[in-house]
Amino acid sequence: MELEFLGTSSGTPTRTRNVAGLALRMDGKGSGWALVDCGEGTQHRILRTALTLHQLRAIFITHLHGDHCYGLPGLLASAGLLNRSERLFIVGPRPLERYLQGVMETTELALPYPLTFVPVEELDGTDVLPDLTVRATELSHRMRSFAYTFTEKEVERRLDASKLAAAGVPRGPAWGLLQKGEDITLDDGRTVRPAEVLLPGRRPRRVIVAGDNDRPGLLAEAAIDADVLVHEATYTEPILAKVGPAPQHSSAQMVARFAETAALPNLVLTHFSPRYQDHHGPLTLADVAAEARAAYTGRLFLARDLARFALDRQGRLEEVTPPRAAPPPRQGTAGDAAEA
Amino acid sequence: MELEFLGTSSGTPTRTRNVAGLALRMDGKGSGWALVDCGEGTQHRILRTALTLHQLRAIFITHLHGDHCYGLPGLLASAGLLNRSERLFIVGPRPLERYLQGVMETTELALPYPLTFVPVEELDGTDVLPDLTVRATELSHRMRSFAYTFTEKEVERRLDASKLAAAGVPRGPAWGLLQKGEDITLDDGRTVRPAEVLLPGRRPRRVIVAGDNDRPGLLAEAAIDADVLVHEATYTEPILAKVGPAPQHSSAQMVARFAETAALPNLVLTHFSPRYQDHHGPLTLADVAAEARAAYTGRLFLARDLARFALDRQGRLEEVTPPRAAPPPRQGTAGDAAEA
Repeated sequence: MELEFLGTSSGTPTRTRNVAGLALRMDGKGSGWALVDCGEGTQHRILRTALTLHQLRAIFITHLHGDHCYGLPGLLASAGLLNRSERLFIVGPRPLERYLQGVMETTELALPYPLTFVPVEELDGTDVLPDLTVRATELSHRMRSFAYTFTEKEVERRLDASKLAAAGVPRGPAWGLLQKGEDITLDDGRTVRPAEVLLPGRRPRRVIVAGDNDRPGLLAEAAIDADVLVHEATYTEPILAKVGPAPQHSSAQMVARFAETAALPNLVLTHFSPRYQDHHGPLTLADVAAEARAAYTGRLFLARDLARFALDRQGRLEEVTPPRAAPPPRQGTAGDAAEA
Repeated sequence: MELEFLGTSSGTPTRTRNVAGLALRMDGKGSGWALVDCGEGTQHRILRTALTLHQLRAIFITHLHGDHCYGLPGLLASAGLLNRSERLFIVGPRPLERYLQGVMETTELALPYPLTFVPVEELDGTDVLPDLTVRATELSHRMRSFAYTFTEKEVERRLDASKLAAAGVPRGPAWGLLQKGEDITLDDGRTVRPAEVLLPGRRPRRVIVAGDNDRPGLLAEAAIDADVLVHEATYTEPILAKVGPAPQHSSAQMVARFAETAALPNLVLTHFSPRYQDHHGPLTLADVAAEARAAYTGRLFLARDLARFALDRQGRLEEVTPPRAAPPPRQGTAGDAAEA
């Protein structure tokens, strides 16, 4: 599984950070990718990656503030101009449907592919991604806001050679059938079931991507068995004290303390106030990192635009951003080989 | 007067061209600037210029296709986050108001500054810019689309020294009053009016910025005494023949022929289909330029993102893009000194 950050700024874009957008890529061939939040300019960021709008399976919107959804109409329109034909799922709070319908009607946007809106309240039991189950958890913010928890549907299982020998299953096609989950019948008439000869499966990987939220503890239940939490850290404590609680955002310390208590092995902070400069200035992201580090002993990451992270089968997150991104492939006719 | 292109692509952004947006800057200190069209990502382009959202006076939307208006909600929101307090005028086709109201309501966008919507049908006689009068002309497109014609309200006038001498006006404060347009009374009781002693004024400069349109001839009346036409040239003739007339766009040849007939001295083409590459490829912008050049003998320009053009008082347009743009000033807290 891979996470690729398309935007990491809160409220307004800066010259180096766009507003919210996160691509979640599954391992499987053809399983495509999912987008969590779609701030203005998300489609422009996608042009700088290897992601394509054709392989996008579903879009999850955490909440309806503009910096999380104003890129949606343009992305949908571009997918249409690029001749997408496959169904696209859009999951989000209920007013999202009214927002989209209003935009599509007033701007006469007709799409050449089917769009299915799934209200977040009806997400449980809905099958929107081929490889992952998705659950929503309500958070605490100025408007209704949600976290999405993505869990692998299936984990690969390996055969236990000693159990196969004990059961007398001869090496050959029968092994393959058992690994695929099928019962086999031996020459002597006995039936062997996969559960009898497979090693215990690893824990399915689980990633939580949270929307804006000032009570990280609301994720306590979702965090059980989670490998990664991606959470906003809009402020540091001194700035939160100055701004006050009204915007209902988290500080780095609040999120870090929660992640420590929940024993989350990997924490990625994002959605930084534009007042924090990347490198030099009165306030920098080093301040955010230091505050989180002081309260959290797990693997800590601060997201950057176009940074990629891989989560391996042991649940360890690593940054895998290429040192310098290769020129991305063209998307339909909309790509352009040269970058100004 | 200056034109600064913020986006020059049609339909979808490319890696070098954003969707429609054009800044029109007046000469006068404090007169600010106007924006014509606001495709998604316009606020991101503005971060790469010296323009600020505080000095924006009015936004004119030519038509409601997404590539001309999907950047509007985000730009309005960012101006609010940057603490804009001055009124902002928005001019456009009537459904624009419904589009904006729907977005603002569903995404709970409250702005800390007053917004005044002026339906394009009611633009005549409305005073939206300090230095320019603006008129709209309806065009021909798949949805209602308009051109905006910007004309200087006042031109500077100079005194005619020989007429002042003949009228017996003594050099001194009286000259200044006459130049400011005030009558004066001489010691002998005679009244001298400015019209008697001023040189004839130059023609006020006039710039037409057209929306999507497949009948350039509709601009014949607006083009009388115009110095500059900015018009879409989405296709070249061979591609238009292939695509067919349904999208209702112009070819470079169609616009060039019209500009030639109307004796327009300066023509700027923009809104190019992403199929035309900047430099290398089966189709490039050199094809667009060659087709227009063959039909037009005036000063021809193809717009590029972030290209700036100055229109001098003699009505001559020149490109004045700095060879390499200086780092832009920070905008409130949203700027970021370093560019990734």
